[in-house]
Amino acid sequence: MQFSSKILEDAVMALSGLPGIGKKTALRLALHLSADKHQKSLKIAEALTVLHNDIKTCKKCFNLSDTEVCGICQNDSRRHKIICVVESARDVMAIEETNQFNGMYHVLGGVISPLEGIGPNDLNIDALISRIQTKEIDEIIMAISPTIEGETTIYYISKLLKEAPVKVSVIARGISFGGELEYADELTLGRSIMARLPYHAEI
Amino acid sequence: MQFSSKILEDAVMALSGLPGIGKKTALRLALHLSADKHQKSLKIAEALTVLHNDIKTCKKCFNLSDTEVCGICQNDSRRHKIICVVESARDVMAIEETNQFNGMYHVLGGVISPLEGIGPNDLNIDALISRIQTKEIDEIIMAISPTIEGETTIYYISKLLKEAPVKVSVIARGISFGGELEYADELTLGRSIMARLPYHAEI
Repeated sequence: MQFSSKILEDAVMALSGLPGIGKKTALRLALHLSADKHQKSLKIAEALTVLHNDIKTCKKCFNLSDTEVCGICQNDSRRHKIICVVESARDVMAIEETNQFNGMYHVLGGVISPLEGIGPNDLNIDALISRIQTKEIDEIIMAISPTIEGETTIYYISKLLKEAPVKVSVIARGISFGGELEYADELTLGRSIMARLPYHAEI
Repeated sequence: MQFSSKILEDAVMALSGLPGIGKKTALRLALHLSADKHQKSLKIAEALTVLHNDIKTCKKCFNLSDTEVCGICQNDSRRHKIICVVESARDVMAIEETNQFNGMYHVLGGVISPLEGIGPNDLNIDALISRIQTKEIDEIIMAISPTIEGETTIYYISKLLKEAPVKVSVIARGISFGGELEYADELTLGRSIMARLPYHAEI
C-alpha cells in the first residue's frame, strides 16, 4: 500500500494488529475515522486508554472487573458454594446470558495446551484449589469446551480434587438443541448414545 | 450482552461504532485488548488521537495529508498539467498502486447522490473548476465509479467544463481483465461491444 500520509499509515498499522482485522479492513476503518465528524476516533482512543489503564481481573474469580472484587463475587444473593469453572471472561458472559446459573465463577485464563506451551502453572488452577480448600464449596461445575485440551484440563483439575469434599460435575455434552442428527459428528453422536439418560430424568 | 465491567462495555460500545464491526466482533476485540501484554490498546489509542488531531486534507487536491499541501502536489517530477478526478482518498491509493499515472489528483469527497442528499455543493467541484481556470491544465481524467451517481457526477462536471480549454477523458470501462464473458452483466457487455476499439489501437 502506498500511503499519502504517515499519520494514516500509523493508524492502519495499529488497527491491523487486532485479531481478524487485515490491512484492507484497517485502511477502511482508518479512512472512515479520518472522515468522521463525530469524534469517533477520540471516543475509541479514550475507551481503549481506560481499558488499558483501569480494567482489573477480580482477585477472587479472575473475571474482568472494574473493581478489585467483581460484581458477581460481591453479590450476596448468589450462591457462593457453587463454582462454575470456565476458560475465559467471554464464557462468563455467555453463561450469564442464559440466566440458568446463580453461583460463582472461576476463570482459568485458558486450557492446558502443551502444543501452545500452556501448562497448569500458566492457569489460575492453584487459586481455584485454594478457594475450594479455604471455603466450604459444595460443587464445582466444569464448563470447559469439550476439546482435547479442555478435556485434559478437566481431568487434571478433577485429579487434584480427588480427596477434597466437593462434588465435581461437567456440563452436559451431546447433540445441540435444534441440531440435525445426520449432520452431527460421529464422536458427539456416539458419545451421546453412550451417555443416554432415562427420558423422565431429562429436564 | 451482560457485561461484568463498565469499562469493557464502554470499549465495546466505542469499537462497535466502526463500520462492519458488530457488537460480537467488538467484544472479541475488546477482550483481546484487555488480555494483551504489548500495550496494543495504548498504541491504537495514540494512533487514533493523532489521526483525529493532525490529519489534514491537502488544500490543493483534498487528498489526505500530513501537511498543508500533500506529497503528490508538492512533487515537481510529476506532471502538473493533468488532473485525475476521483471520489475519495482510497481511490488515490488504488491508482497510485498501479504505477500507471504520474499526474495530479483531485478528490471530490463523494459523488452527486440526490437520494443521500449529496448535491454538487457538498463536493469539491468548485475547487476543481478554479484549479482548471487558474492554472494551465491540459487534461482531466474522470476516474469515477461507473454507477448512476458516478455517471451523473461526470456529466455534471463535463458540462461545467464545456467552454474551458481542457480535454476531458474518462477511464476505460468494459470487461475486467481475467473476467469471463458469460459472467459479465448485460450492461457492461453491451456497452463494451458498442465501445469496441480497433485491435491495434489497444494498449
